[in-house]
Amino acid sequence: MDYTTKLDAAIASGKSNVVVGLDIDLDKIPAIFHKFPNPALEFNRAVITATKDKVAGYKLNMAFYEYLEEKGLEAVRGTLAEIPDNLIKICDAKRGDIANTSELYARTYFDKYGFDSLTVNAYMGKDSLEPFFKRSGKLIYILALTSNESSADFQHDESGGEKLYNKIIRKSLSWNEIDKTGFVFGANYVNELKQFTDSHPEVPLLIPGIGAQGNELGELIKNLHTDRFLINSSRAIIYSAGIDCNENQFFESVSGAAKKLSGEIRDLKSL
Amino acid sequence: MDYTTKLDAAIASGKSNVVVGLDIDLDKIPAIFHKFPNPALEFNRAVITATKDKVAGYKLNMAFYEYLEEKGLEAVRGTLAEIPDNLIKICDAKRGDIANTSELYARTYFDKYGFDSLTVNAYMGKDSLEPFFKRSGKLIYILALTSNESSADFQHDESGGEKLYNKIIRKSLSWNEIDKTGFVFGANYVNELKQFTDSHPEVPLLIPGIGAQGNELGELIKNLHTDRFLINSSRAIIYSAGIDCNENQFFESVSGAAKKLSGEIRDLKSL
Repeated sequence: MDYTTKLDAAIASGKSNVVVGLDIDLDKIPAIFHKFPNPALEFNRAVITATKDKVAGYKLNMAFYEYLEEKGLEAVRGTLAEIPDNLIKICDAKRGDIANTSELYARTYFDKYGFDSLTVNAYMGKDSLEPFFKRSGKLIYILALTSNESSADFQHDESGGEKLYNKIIRKSLSWNEIDKTGFVFGANYVNELKQFTDSHPEVPLLIPGIGAQGNELGELIKNLHTDRFLINSSRAIIYSAGIDCNENQFFESVSGAAKKLSGEIRDLKSL
Repeated sequence: MDYTTKLDAAIASGKSNVVVGLDIDLDKIPAIFHKFPNPALEFNRAVITATKDKVAGYKLNMAFYEYLEEKGLEAVRGTLAEIPDNLIKICDAKRGDIANTSELYARTYFDKYGFDSLTVNAYMGKDSLEPFFKRSGKLIYILALTSNESSADFQHDESGGEKLYNKIIRKSLSWNEIDKTGFVFGANYVNELKQFTDSHPEVPLLIPGIGAQGNELGELIKNLHTDRFLINSSRAIIYSAGIDCNENQFFESVSGAAKKLSGEIRDLKSL
């Protein structure tokens, strides 16, 4: 099955364009999880239980797991096992290297762990991404415009009247891996998102930068002329219950935050 | 101690500008290592024993270790413990993300594991690299011109008469983290290396792409107007003994290959 087919079904089944960013910070997770041998894994399991019928998938930022070493590896595998098969599993690792190295990343994150997609950095060009394109049913989200302030340093560089991020988009779409190519766009780039989705409504987008990073949801949704988008929300959902909650408060708060964001997006889409 | 001070001393002590790339492939390491509980770690230890007085340091490409999961983590930590303190330890991971994520990479690879330097991708701009600059005694090698064929896809883009890789160099040097900034240049970019080292002989360079990737050493060294460079060689050194060698043959071959490359570079420098 193509990634896009799975993506469309995942968005439809949860009636949601939300992916929950499982950015594990042991200093922020509720105290009730610290009694377990692997608090990160137990926390993720509880988040998934509370949200799995209300979202389209989950995104694991590998930096948080690498920091935890062995416990991090165990948490990655255990978390992936907990996510229902029909939901999207995104590995947010922003990889990209010469082909023989990217091949190893593809083996690790696609073949071994079973992620559906991976965020990548295209600075090294086409051959650095080919190992990812060789996997059927998988997709890479290529960094286009990122949500941080310094994204302006290089991503807006103009050459021959075309900005760098646009050249990356145009060139990578010309590689004809159309079912395997998506892009990362920060939620703050409303105009650029409008322009892109007007001409490419079929290309999957991963949109970080709402919630903890701010940015207005209404303006964003109004200008997104596609339904193949995933909006990532992390801290605003997973840490919504605070440190001192009990199991029930945790479930209600996390479940409620996911439901609320999914519903807000749904309502805004129907305007 | 600044990274550059350590680098200069490491190059002087081994009379060598070589870093050995510890790219672990279990299908390529000699059979004698497979009897150990962690063949990757045992292989690295043997490579370090055979080469540590003939090179300036070691580079660990994280893709190979991530693929090995728990054994990979054990191999990273055990390998770093084996490398003498005065030699350079490079984490080749090509990371780069929003600041709170890069902070975690800095904690993991600098603070916890004790690498001296990290390869990074600057596409996301200055704030994505600031957590690395905050560590004293550490350096990041920013991707400038990479050795793969598709590096031409974006790195040579011209805007306002300046190529993208040059803009990345110019801008990142303007951030004034002068003792903490180096660049990755493929060995095939002889003219660009000449030009850069003519004007910036003090900036550390990491140069992959000789050995298994080819490229002429004589032309390269003649045009490098600096001594703050490290040439990475991986497969041509670490797999030089073949699969069926015994311990003694392994030591002689790997030690000989490191000595030969270090000597060739030394001889070419003195021409």
